Amino acid sequence: MPFIDLNSDVGESFGNWTMGDDAAIFTSVSSANVACGFHAGDPSTIARTCREAVAAGVTVGAHVGYRDLAGFGRRFLDCSPTELADDVLYQLGALSAMARAAGTAIKYVKPHGALYNTIVHHEKHAQAVVDAVKAFGTDLPLLLLPGSVALARAETAGLRAVAEAFADRSYTPEGTLVSRREAHAVLHDPAQVAANMVRLATEGTVTAVDGSVIPMPAESICVHGDTAGAVAMAAAVRAALEQAGVQIKSFT
Amino acid sequence: MPFIDLNSDVGESFGNWTMGDDAAIFTSVSSANVACGFHAGDPSTIARTCREAVAAGVTVGAHVGYRDLAGFGRRFLDCSPTELADDVLYQLGALSAMARAAGTAIKYVKPHGALYNTIVHHEKHAQAVVDAVKAFGTDLPLLLLPGSVALARAETAGLRAVAEAFADRSYTPEGTLVSRREAHAVLHDPAQVAANMVRLATEGTVTAVDGSVIPMPAESICVHGDTAGAVAMAAAVRAALEQAGVQIKSFT
Amino acid sequence: MPFIDLNSDVGESFGNWTMGDDAAIFTSVSSANVACGFHAGDPSTIARTCREAVAAGVTVGAHVGYRDLAGFGRRFLDCSPTELADDVLYQLGALSAMARAAGTAIKYVKPHGALYNTIVHHEKHAQAVVDAVKAFGTDLPLLLLPGSVALARAETAGLRAVAEAFADRSYTPEGTLVSRREAHAVLHDPAQVAANMVRLATEGTVTAVDGSVIPMPAESICVHGDTAGAVAMAAAVRAALEQAGVQIKSFT
Amino acid sequence: MPFIDLNSDVGESFGNWTMGDDAAIFTSVSSANVACGFHAGDPSTIARTCREAVAAGVTVGAHVGYRDLAGFGRRFLDCSPTELADDVLYQLGALSAMARAAGTAIKYVKPHGALYNTIVHHEKHAQAVVDAVKAFGTDLPLLLLPGSVALARAETAGLRAVAEAFADRSYTPEGTLVSRREAHAVLHDPAQVAANMVRLATEGTVTAVDGSVIPMPAESICVHGDTAGAVAMAAAVRAALEQAGVQIKSFT
Repeated sequence: MPFIDLNSDVGESFGNWTMGDDAAIFTSVSSANVACGFHAGDPSTIARTCREAVAAGVTVGAHVGYRDLAGFGRRFLDCSPTELADDVLYQLGALSAMARAAGTAIKYVKPHGALYNTIVHHEKHAQAVVDAVKAFGTDLPLLLLPGSVALARAETAGLRAVAEAFADRSYTPEGTLVSRREAHAVLHDPAQVAANMVRLATEGTVTAVDGSVIPMPAESICVHGDTAGAVAMAAAVRAALEQAGVQIKSFT
Repeated sequence: MPFIDLNSDVGESFGNWTMGDDAAIFTSVSSANVACGFHAGDPSTIARTCREAVAAGVTVGAHVGYRDLAGFGRRFLDCSPTELADDVLYQLGALSAMARAAGTAIKYVKPHGALYNTIVHHEKHAQAVVDAVKAFGTDLPLLLLPGSVALARAETAGLRAVAEAFADRSYTPEGTLVSRREAHAVLHDPAQVAANMVRLATEGTVTAVDGSVIPMPAESICVHGDTAGAVAMAAAVRAALEQAGVQIKSFT
Repeated sequence: MPFIDLNSDVGESFGNWTMGDDAAIFTSVSSANVACGFHAGDPSTIARTCREAVAAGVTVGAHVGYRDLAGFGRRFLDCSPTELADDVLYQLGALSAMARAAGTAIKYVKPHGALYNTIVHHEKHAQAVVDAVKAFGTDLPLLLLPGSVALARAETAGLRAVAEAFADRSYTPEGTLVSRREAHAVLHDPAQVAANMVRLATEGTVTAVDGSVIPMPAESICVHGDTAGAVAMAAAVRAALEQAGVQIKSFT
Repeated sequence: MPFIDLNSDVGESFGNWTMGDDAAIFTSVSSANVACGFHAGDPSTIARTCREAVAAGVTVGAHVGYRDLAGFGRRFLDCSPTELADDVLYQLGALSAMARAAGTAIKYVKPHGALYNTIVHHEKHAQAVVDAVKAFGTDLPLLLLPGSVALARAETAGLRAVAEAFADRSYTPEGTLVSRREAHAVLHDPAQVAANMVRLATEGTVTAVDGSVIPMPAESICVHGDTAGAVAMAAAVRAALEQAGVQIKSFT
């Protein structure tokens, strides 16, 4: 029976500000990328999110980011590799305690936002993230963009690197993401997205923006929960996968 | 052979700002209260401090505080018990990862500044700190003011509560600290302080502000490292204790 | 022709987090309490909010708060009077520049959240707020709870102190707010609220929780915009006031 | 009589952390670059610094930076131009209120740290800083590196752009700063530095790292106050300039 992981960002509220419908997205995904407080997520939000993940049977991952609340971790910050590694390790530790108190543990690490994008190419920041995960001590797998420098660095360091696909994003024939600056970068039709993800899970391919079918060696699919439309799309993807006989489960 | 613990606050630098002479104080103390990032201590400072503590053979404790960098954790913050417990647990987790990467672990918890003073009497905040330590899972001992509400709460929760004395503070005949608003609240003569602490370690008593000798059931002595005078006083206390045949070692 | 001011908190988004429907509430109110960055409101949010206020013909006030993003300014922070006065002055200056760039200026000051509630009784913090407004130099009026210590301090300092009523809150027969811990503290029926506010604007009275009619010398009515229900209630209040021949305009 | 300006960064303490000996540096300089709270400087520090500048007869400038306390504004932050312009305007407003309360006003703007270095070449961030200064409304002059993109943008916008030299830095024969990664980048001999700065003030030239004498069209000299050596060097520069008959005064 084929299987795949569905992951989504959760726990992105902060203090009095709410973001995303975590309760809804927990009904669709198998993995929860939990914000750790540096780009989003105050301690009480993190605690609650971990408890909700446990209740929903969803695996907890650490969504680590640059120290930038005002920018939601979406702005590159030119910190030193040491600072970055220490910042990531700090976040892993913080989330780890919250997860343990909720009866679970961090099972994987997914960098967030600008950090995720930066370590596709930035060797020092990629290595810093890998170093932090190694320093944390339990050799957690990393969830990353296929082909990223970080993925290679993780494997060199003996960590499992898991590639993910983005449900609502178009791919070039070369297998890279169509830039958000271009039209058709983001897909809005749940049925089209769901069909594409079924093909990914069952055949290991997706349809690129030019209609060609390309290999996509992803073990996880990233869906979103920050808008009603995103939540509905995540549910559609899950339903289509289950109907196609694909099991939804954590890659860990 | 009598013994006692000497503890001091360390790791209180933040980013480009330096505070205290940690290298010097590490030569005098047996326990290091390491700031966890909420009132002081960025992740790289914490990492470095943990490594230095390990190198110096000093036990690492978590110096948890209110979320208030601008006020250095010295201002009461009327957060809810849940927020406080989650904030403390987050700090414990963060420091824990940094300590583990340095080859050690958190061995005790000492609340900082306004939190330390608040939980002398504030039942809900005292319980929140205890709850966080319990939630952390390893039943760490708490280092507290003798007679504080938090100490009683910790013991009720099955945690070890260790009372500490302040080397450079005057005590009333009733065994409470002379308020900083009064003259003679702070002692400045290293010889006097050292003699008093030797008596504490060997006889369990200190000389109060009125000259009376009072019982002081402390297992640890708090010294400071934030000024040259404080560092010298810490060294004088240690030297006097050793000369009196008192062993300096962690209470853990 | 009778007139009254309607004020509401706006500009409470922060970075990627949105709060409130400012565009909607701007159609109902005459005065906008703009968050200044310490409890909510990043600079770009403040800039945009000031421009929208100008476009809507709404008067800009400074909604100053304790330095506590994580707590949204709703937690008492025991800062020194000097720290508080400096924090408030800093916020006034920051908002002032953003308002000027938008073609307007700060016309009044309304403390936010815990600061608002604290200076009802806390003499030093009340005086600190007044001192900051005086230091700002243009003797801005303060929008405050009737009977608060801050109101008296403002008047003593030669500042205009404007009392406000809360549209959706119940009053005791003595004219104080029914505590949120009690039932009926918050009113949910737009028609009832609107009728009460019409009486306030036309007769200077409101109906208390026991049905008695009590004097309420308020020159402004606080409405909310953080939920759809709140926005609808604000619109209902405005419509009822206009229908009753009450002009809605800033108290400045 | 020849004259030149001496400027230094001040007000870089934050909360309980002290940085620099502002009192000492105020005796040497004519212009004070006052941190505005985003990379350093809490409101009370800013207020005190403005009062001290007034007492010392030193001109107040706004030292604006990226929003990065943990990195002291020394790390590039890839914010949008709009975010940057709003952040700078917010800082200008905040400092302006503190300066006015101290009896003075902001007389110029000097970007700090990574922002200073970035706008040497980053066109959008350079323009954003210029836009913020224009939006502030009083067309303040900008203190910048000679040849920087920001300097050209400022002049295009009709702002006065003042070039500065660094007393303790070596220059290439082309008039650019020798990179800190190279030997001899930083000068440590007060006598050599002072002689070089006298030549700058009287002849408009400095001696480059290769011994050649090159033109340096600077109207201000940047000195430091963060170490005892830096303070002594600033005093040496001032003394040498005065002895050479150069008047030390603000460029404004």
